[in-house]
Amino acid sequence: MKNSLGREIPEEHSGNHGGFAGELAMIREYQERARHIRPVKPRDQKLLGSLREAIEKTGLEDGMTISFHHHFREGDFVMNMVLDQIAEMGIKDLSIAPSSIANVHEPLIEHIKNGVVTQITSSGLRDKVGAAISSGIMKHPVVIRSHGGRARAIATGDIKIDVAFLGAPSSDCYGNLNGTVGKATCGSLGYAMIDAKYADQVVAITDSLVPYPNTPISIPQTDVDFIVEVEAIGDPTGIAKGATRFTNNPKELLIADYAAKVITHSPYYQNGFSFQTGTGGAALAVTRFLKESMIKDGITASFALGGITNAMVELLKEGLVERIIDVQDFDHPAAVSLGANEAHYEIDANMYASPLSKGAVINQLDTAILSALEIDTDYNVNVLTGSDGVIRGASGGHSDTSAACKMSLVIAPLIRGRIPTVVEAVNTVVTPGSSVDVLVTELGIAINPLRSDLIAHFKELDVPQYTIKELQEKAYGIVGIPEAIEYGEQVVAVIEYRDGTMIDVVRNV
Amino acid sequence: MKNSLGREIPEEHSGNHGGFAGELAMIREYQERARHIRPVKPRDQKLLGSLREAIEKTGLEDGMTISFHHHFREGDFVMNMVLDQIAEMGIKDLSIAPSSIANVHEPLIEHIKNGVVTQITSSGLRDKVGAAISSGIMKHPVVIRSHGGRARAIATGDIKIDVAFLGAPSSDCYGNLNGTVGKATCGSLGYAMIDAKYADQVVAITDSLVPYPNTPISIPQTDVDFIVEVEAIGDPTGIAKGATRFTNNPKELLIADYAAKVITHSPYYQNGFSFQTGTGGAALAVTRFLKESMIKDGITASFALGGITNAMVELLKEGLVERIIDVQDFDHPAAVSLGANEAHYEIDANMYASPLSKGAVINQLDTAILSALEIDTDYNVNVLTGSDGVIRGASGGHSDTSAACKMSLVIAPLIRGRIPTVVEAVNTVVTPGSSVDVLVTELGIAINPLRSDLIAHFKELDVPQYTIKELQEKAYGIVGIPEAIEYGEQVVAVIEYRDGTMIDVVRNV
Repeated sequence: MKNSLGREIPEEHSGNHGGFAGELAMIREYQERARHIRPVKPRDQKLLGSLREAIEKTGLEDGMTISFHHHFREGDFVMNMVLDQIAEMGIKDLSIAPSSIANVHEPLIEHIKNGVVTQITSSGLRDKVGAAISSGIMKHPVVIRSHGGRARAIATGDIKIDVAFLGAPSSDCYGNLNGTVGKATCGSLGYAMIDAKYADQVVAITDSLVPYPNTPISIPQTDVDFIVEVEAIGDPTGIAKGATRFTNNPKELLIADYAAKVITHSPYYQNGFSFQTGTGGAALAVTRFLKESMIKDGITASFALGGITNAMVELLKEGLVERIIDVQDFDHPAAVSLGANEAHYEIDANMYASPLSKGAVINQLDTAILSALEIDTDYNVNVLTGSDGVIRGASGGHSDTSAACKMSLVIAPLIRGRIPTVVEAVNTVVTPGSSVDVLVTELGIAINPLRSDLIAHFKELDVPQYTIKELQEKAYGIVGIPEAIEYGEQVVAVIEYRDGTMIDVVRNV
Repeated sequence: MKNSLGREIPEEHSGNHGGFAGELAMIREYQERARHIRPVKPRDQKLLGSLREAIEKTGLEDGMTISFHHHFREGDFVMNMVLDQIAEMGIKDLSIAPSSIANVHEPLIEHIKNGVVTQITSSGLRDKVGAAISSGIMKHPVVIRSHGGRARAIATGDIKIDVAFLGAPSSDCYGNLNGTVGKATCGSLGYAMIDAKYADQVVAITDSLVPYPNTPISIPQTDVDFIVEVEAIGDPTGIAKGATRFTNNPKELLIADYAAKVITHSPYYQNGFSFQTGTGGAALAVTRFLKESMIKDGITASFALGGITNAMVELLKEGLVERIIDVQDFDHPAAVSLGANEAHYEIDANMYASPLSKGAVINQLDTAILSALEIDTDYNVNVLTGSDGVIRGASGGHSDTSAACKMSLVIAPLIRGRIPTVVEAVNTVVTPGSSVDVLVTELGIAINPLRSDLIAHFKELDVPQYTIKELQEKAYGIVGIPEAIEYGEQVVAVIEYRDGTMIDVVRNV
């Protein structure tokens, strides 16, 4: 069958909710999933002697679903540690539901081959794991979910977590956890908080056991069944890996300059506006240019949202941003700020971005800066597969924020090396074109025809403006028409839209 | 039928879980209740024009269950305001599930008589409302639940809240609430947090609408459906009403001195110990005496718990207590401290005291000071009915903390006026004798024979010691044998133990 974007979704992969049918088509009342709880009595001990003992106490069995969070990013030790232990115990056929998968999780490939892991849902896949999945090593396709979509799936029971294994930078003996105290501080535990609230059982794994009660409490004792102390849960260097410095690349600076102009000349740029930027070089440059304008214009933002970097923290410190609303931190200064500044506030993934919550923060967001591996002439965006068709990116909050905020900007260079970014049709749709308002490239901008209000508003804007078709033609004019990818027949990943419908599939290469 | 304490429970009032069968007899695995959620879309507005509009939008109908919190205590305007509006709209036959009912809620009597309210569950009932209920104005008995028992009942679905009406000292337009900012600050919203998490729909009623995002966030936007702004939600004077000053009563000072000696000579008194005191004159004096000992002995507590008063806040400021864990505040300085001191930490009622949570804070508590209207020679405690059999007290956290902490002290004068406190059999059992470790009176202490360890430990304690039978005989020796209350046949209240079993009933007088 074809979904509303015309993407072919094989019937057997159309999931519980059918094909994508529009951003708000599936926003319906529902019964939230409830946990099965094992109460803890007054003299019960939660602190156990080993990870093995914890796995045994949970009663983990073949076929169950376990989850992890990705706040340690490339510094994560927890997922490999737990899967190794589970494999050693002979447990098989598990579904894993990490909030994302990093390059450091390469050992996962062996666990897939050995039948320990047979199903995966994740925001994304990197490098070797992505390549292995794209080569077709799994019988069941990986389910790619956005951060908001994952929260939705957990709340509705589409993902039913039997046991969540949550790395905790600090814990007390009763399971009060946070990410701002300890040896491997990652800051916000926003993605883990959701697992803790909905999983039947939660095992906290920490390398910093602190006296009771551990505060601040990101995840409370009432959401944790067992605690295990280990030597190390993560590598602080890896946690901050990929955090970007300020760019000197003239192309990125030009994109950032155009994006900042779009924001500061938009109807939303006024006292109390709100924004989410991001972590790429150009995105950080937007933040800097925005800051200069805000100082000049005497404008402050009510809040900044999202994955947080030091650039945001500086805006907070300087009083240009009144609150940081934080679901994830991308560098050490951001993690430290969360613990130190009460205007820097931690939220969970449900509150950040779930389309089926009682109202996510992104619904209050004015503008968001988003990236793209590809964007096509219908404004559909691919942030997942590379130009070779291999999975190497992540859905992240892309489709969430772009759908919910008042003005979404996709910033991307027209071409990367010899590969066009603006194309006729993206290889893989993660975000539908209806969610993207403005494309910003180094040549200029294109405004989505759906936003006639913005087209009218930006008529006099001092930035070159094109149709997206013109930008695509310019890209092809420089590097030629890209060769089509030769996919196989096997579906290796299905891409859920944030509401649970299928927006696209990825086949093997 | 008779429960394990020998109290007669009529079959028709034995509830879902039967008669009380011991403190831990009913701690079993269960499926948590889940909400029915109406998602909020990006451009939806939650802020409505009037309370009436909010009630209409929730779809409130005859026979449903609504809830309130009692953090405004005698200063609450919300429950009367909502019930008046509901009555005006002609909705009938409601169950109400406030966390407690105060004297200020006297208009409730009319709503009962008019058939607007036909079922009630509450921690307690005061003065005129208690007298009216005790006279038998309701067809269905009131269900008295402890604070932990109420949280349990909400989590299990024994109480299914259709709409929670929550007074919020401050809210933004999307429903981020706290109790530390605004005109009628009450501090912790610990009891309201539970309603917000489990109710199908939540209406926040505020008199301080603040810019988005309101922080700190005690109740998040993801737990709130609608917001209504009104002129005033509470009277700050009433919120702090009944907050006690330090006593000069020699009898109370003597009780406090003995209680402090029991604590400071107990095995639990060491660095890192924890305690909950309370709000009566004697309880506050215990806190003061404890403080003097802690300074002298160089001992600090890891945390103080419970309903919080300024006396606790001073201990925190002086570094004698490392954390305050706060489910409710009893005076203005305590409410202010919650907003100002990050070592003063807000928790919900589930985390405070639920017997079916994954571990409540009271399970980590060393010692608790509790009150009694009556205590009998089996150590059973009545904190609900007066010597005339009329309901005028509240279950509160009494049966919760006493069951869970390592050493519970009941402090009470031997007699009050011409009425004995220590009796042969209490009129009404709220807390079973097995939960009470030490009775402290102005004559001396009695240690529960179940605690042979404490009897041995306190052999040399410089406080007069008696059996509880001796204390009861002394009380009767002074004031004579109390006359039996002449009850009617009608059951006007059933008293649930914290686990949901029936521990006693109250008949009409």
